[in-house]
Amino acid sequence: MLGFRSLSSSRLVLAHPRLVLRRLRSTAPLGARKTLQDINECVLNAKYAVRGPIPLRAEELKQQLVEEPGSLPFSKIINANIGNPQQLDQKPLTFYRQVLSLLQNPALMSENHEQLLTTAKYQPDAVARAKRMLQQAGGSVGAYSQSQGVAGYRESVAKFIANRDGEPADANDIFLTTGASGAVAYILQLFCSGPQNGALIPIPQYPLYTATLALNNAEPLPYYLDENSGWSTDPEQFEKVIATAVEKGVKPTCLVVINPGNPTGAILSEENIEGIFQVAAKYSLVVIADEVYQENGFDDVEFTSMKKVLRVLQKTQPGIYDNVQLVSLHSTSKGVSGECGQRGGYMELVGFSTEVKQVILKLASISLCPVVTGQALVDLMVCPPQKGEVSYEKDQQERKAIHQALKERSNLLYRAFQSLEGVSCQKPQGSMYLFPKLEFTKRAIDKAEALGVAPDEYYCKELLEATGICTVPGSGFRQIPGTYHLRTTFLAPGTDWIESWKKFHEKFWDQHRD
Amino acid sequence: MLGFRSLSSSRLVLAHPRLVLRRLRSTAPLGARKTLQDINECVLNAKYAVRGPIPLRAEELKQQLVEEPGSLPFSKIINANIGNPQQLDQKPLTFYRQVLSLLQNPALMSENHEQLLTTAKYQPDAVARAKRMLQQAGGSVGAYSQSQGVAGYRESVAKFIANRDGEPADANDIFLTTGASGAVAYILQLFCSGPQNGALIPIPQYPLYTATLALNNAEPLPYYLDENSGWSTDPEQFEKVIATAVEKGVKPTCLVVINPGNPTGAILSEENIEGIFQVAAKYSLVVIADEVYQENGFDDVEFTSMKKVLRVLQKTQPGIYDNVQLVSLHSTSKGVSGECGQRGGYMELVGFSTEVKQVILKLASISLCPVVTGQALVDLMVCPPQKGEVSYEKDQQERKAIHQALKERSNLLYRAFQSLEGVSCQKPQGSMYLFPKLEFTKRAIDKAEALGVAPDEYYCKELLEATGICTVPGSGFRQIPGTYHLRTTFLAPGTDWIESWKKFHEKFWDQHRD
Repeated sequence: MLGFRSLSSSRLVLAHPRLVLRRLRSTAPLGARKTLQDINECVLNAKYAVRGPIPLRAEELKQQLVEEPGSLPFSKIINANIGNPQQLDQKPLTFYRQVLSLLQNPALMSENHEQLLTTAKYQPDAVARAKRMLQQAGGSVGAYSQSQGVAGYRESVAKFIANRDGEPADANDIFLTTGASGAVAYILQLFCSGPQNGALIPIPQYPLYTATLALNNAEPLPYYLDENSGWSTDPEQFEKVIATAVEKGVKPTCLVVINPGNPTGAILSEENIEGIFQVAAKYSLVVIADEVYQENGFDDVEFTSMKKVLRVLQKTQPGIYDNVQLVSLHSTSKGVSGECGQRGGYMELVGFSTEVKQVILKLASISLCPVVTGQALVDLMVCPPQKGEVSYEKDQQERKAIHQALKERSNLLYRAFQSLEGVSCQKPQGSMYLFPKLEFTKRAIDKAEALGVAPDEYYCKELLEATGICTVPGSGFRQIPGTYHLRTTFLAPGTDWIESWKKFHEKFWDQHRD
Repeated sequence: MLGFRSLSSSRLVLAHPRLVLRRLRSTAPLGARKTLQDINECVLNAKYAVRGPIPLRAEELKQQLVEEPGSLPFSKIINANIGNPQQLDQKPLTFYRQVLSLLQNPALMSENHEQLLTTAKYQPDAVARAKRMLQQAGGSVGAYSQSQGVAGYRESVAKFIANRDGEPADANDIFLTTGASGAVAYILQLFCSGPQNGALIPIPQYPLYTATLALNNAEPLPYYLDENSGWSTDPEQFEKVIATAVEKGVKPTCLVVINPGNPTGAILSEENIEGIFQVAAKYSLVVIADEVYQENGFDDVEFTSMKKVLRVLQKTQPGIYDNVQLVSLHSTSKGVSGECGQRGGYMELVGFSTEVKQVILKLASISLCPVVTGQALVDLMVCPPQKGEVSYEKDQQERKAIHQALKERSNLLYRAFQSLEGVSCQKPQGSMYLFPKLEFTKRAIDKAEALGVAPDEYYCKELLEATGICTVPGSGFRQIPGTYHLRTTFLAPGTDWIESWKKFHEKFWDQHRD
């Protein structure tokens, strides 16, 4: 055993009167600091492009605009790289924020202050709601809740799901989570960990999935969405992906579906969903249904939940789908709520045994509980003011205005892309994104190669430097090799930025003609 | 390749008009549901006693009290199992909650409502503070912030640390996190993952550490705190633990220190801290300093931060400690804030290279950002109303009252334990817990063995069933084999529960005499 030097010698009273320290007499060999070599390789391998090099460069430029105004060819950064509506001036829903402010300061609800709240346009239903929710949280949003989430709020979620689907839902199957990303972390950690396990993920995908798989050292098993048929799925392809994985010794355990699609903006047909459940039933795959954009559908294509489709299949074809397990995710970050920073979300577990749910509960308990105000926001999202309640009309107006603005902006941007040389784009059906396909000339491809980046990354970087518009290259979401895309939100208000994008594109295209 | 059945046959229009589903013609072999056998073994192995079987039983009893009042020998559950002050009627600090309510509903700050805020006793400094903090958050707490946390709030943390320690601190080294548990997850995932890596953890410990190590499949390397010398550390023991680990092929990478101690309630001497840094310097260990109870010290023993000690060592003994890496954790859940449900926290990274910090930033970016209101609460915690500001006096009164109440309760409970047969307890110095040592008769030990539980677990279970007091057995925190303890908070108001505990104990002791 290596001897450790005695501490009991030569006291030194220092400038810091309370610190009595002793001199180490040996010159023990100095340990080195940790470097990248000492870091868990899985963490090093994880990639998350939505906040990757281009958004980081955008942060630098933003800082430069503060420190040296006028030093760049644009006056602000348009963060179209991430679905963050309130960063781009979307206003939060009034009812939500009134209730949350009362939860943070219940003193506002004391009897003396009724007049006061009226002046600030708090309706009695907001106060009643805050009282109910505060009581359900045990009297304070500053106390830890149950790790699974406040029971009363989970009841609200179960009612919402039952209404949405016309099928029963149980509060015991609901876990409130930190956004939807918290739920993804739990489920993949549980069922898809280590190189012998894999999860089928759509390509293109939201990079949370590949990043979380990388952290778990598990295998992403990509299945391609078909751009030409509105980003649809192909049952034959699932079979091929699974067979190839099994040949390589990887067991597929989960199948991720993002619907409405991120980054594609497409809504899956019920036929596609049925095909997914068939493969899930056959191969015992836990279906992870990322349905966080379920409120973000446009009128022409309606969203149907995976659970509803599953229940119908289970009823009409008894025996085939009985054992399917589904985890459906939702979030307060998207939809008309857009409350990203509040970190609310939930998952519904369908078809899980009590013992497995208990393991998930234990996992949740290690991080104690999701933020209670985020949980409260989930309750507000799934149970907004109802017809006949005082706040209903105003709330509806606000919702419709947000919905309408998003629809208009998506169409504007879609039409702009249609007008650009070398760009094609599927018509948006839902979510907050467009994912246009970019053709590049040989000259552009060579230029990118010379710079050591992919052509779409080169394009996005040039776009940022010229216009301040921050997007994410398709490579961040993966794509069919040899194809190029980018993801942009259509959240930014106004049309100036679209005009400047058009101008940039024309110039870029002209400069890179073969 | 396995063939997948064609979907294109026998359409069925169902009761659900929009769901057009097709009958699967094959009877493909049904996949089985996931069971415990399919779950990541690391997750199965993780234990978290603070919310383990005894607290779960307490939840059942709580439910029973609601459904059948009077059916139990007590009228309420005393949740002494977890440091959750606001669950036990501790009031949040007024200033914090006023600012948070304004952040949630900035409309309250419009000029028309000045009178209104005055009526509700909002002082102008609360409004000014909320305006500053809202602007720093980019105008809404509903927007994602930087993944590292709002820059302005990190500046506040750096100032707080600099004032506390008299040593500079840099906002770039601060990461705002989801409570302190979020920070622990990041650091252990980064540096201590896989069975070839281990972390030195104090025994007894807060079970977050063993649980997180289990999730990372890494080795806990226990070092024992010496109860008889106020739970002090022993430098020789560190050497032994490290040598034994290395012999077994495990590389120690981190060293966890909890100060003030959880569950011990003890404060480490500076001599002990110096010894810890010596071993860290010698063996390249990242020191994880869990300092979340730094505000919870009692008058007689003062808290000194690990960073302050490190900086003094670095100055007075140049060369020896230069390469030490320290992660210091703090949280809004404890102290006089007690805002557990708001999930605020931070970590300061000392001695880390830019490239390693960038990897941590990438990891943080995968979960997007910590809840922004929790971040705001960190800012409030580190920068409360200052002398001369309008809210200062009232805020100070509230703080002193909480501090005083905790001190009184800890003393009451400590004296109660001193009076009990077979119980000994170190004098509380800090944190929110007492960790008394229990002696058991052979009869009690045999009884526990017959029930298949450890003696301290048996005691805690009996205590719960007889009095409604929910505690955690020492085994949940680990302890020297053959010794028995329990952890209880001293947060519950009143003395009735202490009296009923005393009565229970006397009866238990009488019933189990040899």
